[in-house]
Amino acid sequence: MKKMKFNELKNHYNEEVVLEGFVDKIRDLQYVQFVILRDRYGKVQVTLEKDGSMEELNKIVSSLTIESTVKVTGKLLENEKVKMGGMEVIPTQIEVTSESYHELPLNYKDMNSSGIDTRMDLRFLDLRNEKNQLMFQIQSTLQQGMREWLYEQDFTEIHTPKLIGAASESGSDVFEVQYFDTTAYLAQSPQFYKQMAMSSGFEKVFEVAPCFRAENSNTNRHATEFTSFDIECSYIDSFLDVMDLEEDLLIAGLSKVKEKWGDKIQEVFGKEVVVPTKPFPRIKLQDLYQELKNRYHYEIPTEDVGDMNAEAEKLTSRYAMEEYGHEFIFVTDFSAKKRAFYHMRKEGIPQGYDLIWRGCEITTGAQREHRYDVLVEQAKEKGLGKDVEFYLEFFRYGCPPHGGFALGVDRLTMLLLGTATIKETMFLFRGPNRITP
Amino acid sequence: MKKMKFNELKNHYNEEVVLEGFVDKIRDLQYVQFVILRDRYGKVQVTLEKDGSMEELNKIVSSLTIESTVKVTGKLLENEKVKMGGMEVIPTQIEVTSESYHELPLNYKDMNSSGIDTRMDLRFLDLRNEKNQLMFQIQSTLQQGMREWLYEQDFTEIHTPKLIGAASESGSDVFEVQYFDTTAYLAQSPQFYKQMAMSSGFEKVFEVAPCFRAENSNTNRHATEFTSFDIECSYIDSFLDVMDLEEDLLIAGLSKVKEKWGDKIQEVFGKEVVVPTKPFPRIKLQDLYQELKNRYHYEIPTEDVGDMNAEAEKLTSRYAMEEYGHEFIFVTDFSAKKRAFYHMRKEGIPQGYDLIWRGCEITTGAQREHRYDVLVEQAKEKGLGKDVEFYLEFFRYGCPPHGGFALGVDRLTMLLLGTATIKETMFLFRGPNRITP
Repeated sequence: MKKMKFNELKNHYNEEVVLEGFVDKIRDLQYVQFVILRDRYGKVQVTLEKDGSMEELNKIVSSLTIESTVKVTGKLLENEKVKMGGMEVIPTQIEVTSESYHELPLNYKDMNSSGIDTRMDLRFLDLRNEKNQLMFQIQSTLQQGMREWLYEQDFTEIHTPKLIGAASESGSDVFEVQYFDTTAYLAQSPQFYKQMAMSSGFEKVFEVAPCFRAENSNTNRHATEFTSFDIECSYIDSFLDVMDLEEDLLIAGLSKVKEKWGDKIQEVFGKEVVVPTKPFPRIKLQDLYQELKNRYHYEIPTEDVGDMNAEAEKLTSRYAMEEYGHEFIFVTDFSAKKRAFYHMRKEGIPQGYDLIWRGCEITTGAQREHRYDVLVEQAKEKGLGKDVEFYLEFFRYGCPPHGGFALGVDRLTMLLLGTATIKETMFLFRGPNRITP
Repeated sequence: MKKMKFNELKNHYNEEVVLEGFVDKIRDLQYVQFVILRDRYGKVQVTLEKDGSMEELNKIVSSLTIESTVKVTGKLLENEKVKMGGMEVIPTQIEVTSESYHELPLNYKDMNSSGIDTRMDLRFLDLRNEKNQLMFQIQSTLQQGMREWLYEQDFTEIHTPKLIGAASESGSDVFEVQYFDTTAYLAQSPQFYKQMAMSSGFEKVFEVAPCFRAENSNTNRHATEFTSFDIECSYIDSFLDVMDLEEDLLIAGLSKVKEKWGDKIQEVFGKEVVVPTKPFPRIKLQDLYQELKNRYHYEIPTEDVGDMNAEAEKLTSRYAMEEYGHEFIFVTDFSAKKRAFYHMRKEGIPQGYDLIWRGCEITTGAQREHRYDVLVEQAKEKGLGKDVEFYLEFFRYGCPPHGGFALGVDRLTMLLLGTATIKETMFLFRGPNRITP
């Protein structure tokens, strides 16, 4: 017989059941033993009298250690007195399937009892925390919701190489790989290749894959490796189509999350999942500067003019909420100096946007420059040479107008659940000082 | 108005339509011009009389180059004489959205006209071939089918790091990365981390992500970077559960492919999509050796005893087909010497399998050794030291019995569609001599 999910037990009172899980707690009293088992779905109590009828089992329980895993066969009884869901299992067999030998080096049940670095060192234990268990199921559901929408819209999932022959978009912040007798680099994003797919006539593609950034910065939202959800789409009329697309995609993802986890997120993380309405508010950067000045007496520092910064992002969300009652807001009309060379420009203005959610930038999106001559000029202007030559080739033999964007899965999860840092929303965080476990 | 998919035009006779696509062919005759447009869904003819009424458009067409992209507005007419689906568009506007300036360096319509290396160099053009267009849509659908089944079974998608601090499973064949002031490595597989998820109580996980192998081998089925579809599952009773799971997963994927693309695959690739029946045939390695000897006079070479090789895999498929009429066959009971240290053993026999499909190994699966003491012994026996210490820690504080397997997405596609090499089923192939484009 197969293990039952602990949240489905209540349909099986007075039946023989098989439980498998971690030993969450043990109370070994004079006349009775209680073992609380835990699986991904919940907890259940195993009750064992010390009346001499089950001495073998009593012995097993007496030597059991917390966090060991066991397989218990027994009868499931309804018992109102039991706090653990009003049920208990009276065992006929107990098998210890793995032993936890030592005292735990981490009290994973209390996240505040250890610093973030200890938690990261012992991440395999840290992840046993209920919040973390939930977090990764929610993250998976978010991506599922977005994927399902993309499949419906006829998007093709592609897998582009992470080992690349040229230093990619900028040359700085890129990891070098010893590649047989030569040097390769790790892709900072699939940008060039998802655009290649457009040149190849794929029309609509997405990719969910790791990106690598050799940035030596330690903030709450940066990592040297992270998961990017990338979209690219042909035959758009302008970057407005890209924004429309992103609205639909986020609505699909958040709807799925709300449906499956909305109550649980409220209960465990104290956050409401808000499915946004369309259209999201949209504002030009210069108008936004004016609003931030008038409302919050915030003036963008000289070095950031034409762009955003962390403080401006926070205030922009406040503005979107106060003015529109909306969690999302698109900011458009950035300075060409602050945007990548492959953004299309119209009268000098990049045809793209940043999307801000809950005080943080989550996307840069744009229509791309698909006309070879113009693109070559723009690359030259940014001082890009040999490294982008292979990329420019993609546009020599026709390429449809296209655009796209990328979303960081870990950052989205952080904002969705209100965690303090991206380190907590990554299965295993990677930073300048963190490459283990 | 938005571009229409070319396979949906027939619902719009006598309406104004907007077409966007590549210029596939041009015939500029004395009294009439024909332009064949191509999108991802099909082709359509644009017909333009040279009667003086549309001189501006005639001029545009006269200077048009093949593979440019255009946006055409016009009226869609039914016309039985037109070969291209019995319809044509009479244009009122033509806009050239991108120009193909030069003669194409690759005749992508005839795959045999260029060697595989030229095709890889010009992959962005090569992918415009109809077969390639289809291939990646099919590959996407295959993964979609498998994912949907996994979501239904409550699997969680995880993203494990590709930058790792130790040289992983073996130490050989691993790429080194310059990581700030230290050295990191590229993950050869998510094996250790998906097992970590089991230790963390995730129970059921999958990951679809790149794997990196610094193997200097040039075969039709190896690459230095490839996409792996990885599964791991807790609370199994034995590796038989893992095989059952893999059967269901493949059936789900292939059913989805057959449903959506079965006819098209038959037509374009000349291959039948066979949805396998359960259970797949299963045979022990020693019994298989006997069968191959008796039936095909094939004796496994001494160095491969206890294992398979390419020739044995081919004959094994032949045997499965002749004996069971089945495309798949599980081979079990390999030699412990030929299997990884983390495979569970019972009386010395690894509790795992290889799965063979159409003459090629597609999976190694197994129950894993989850008991710390036994695992430490098995690692020692294989001479593994410091590099696996972090991994062994995962099993110190309880870990459920678990198992899993991995499928190479590119290899699966190759076998599904009968292409000659894995190079053709990867968006961009990576090998010892190939790191571009």
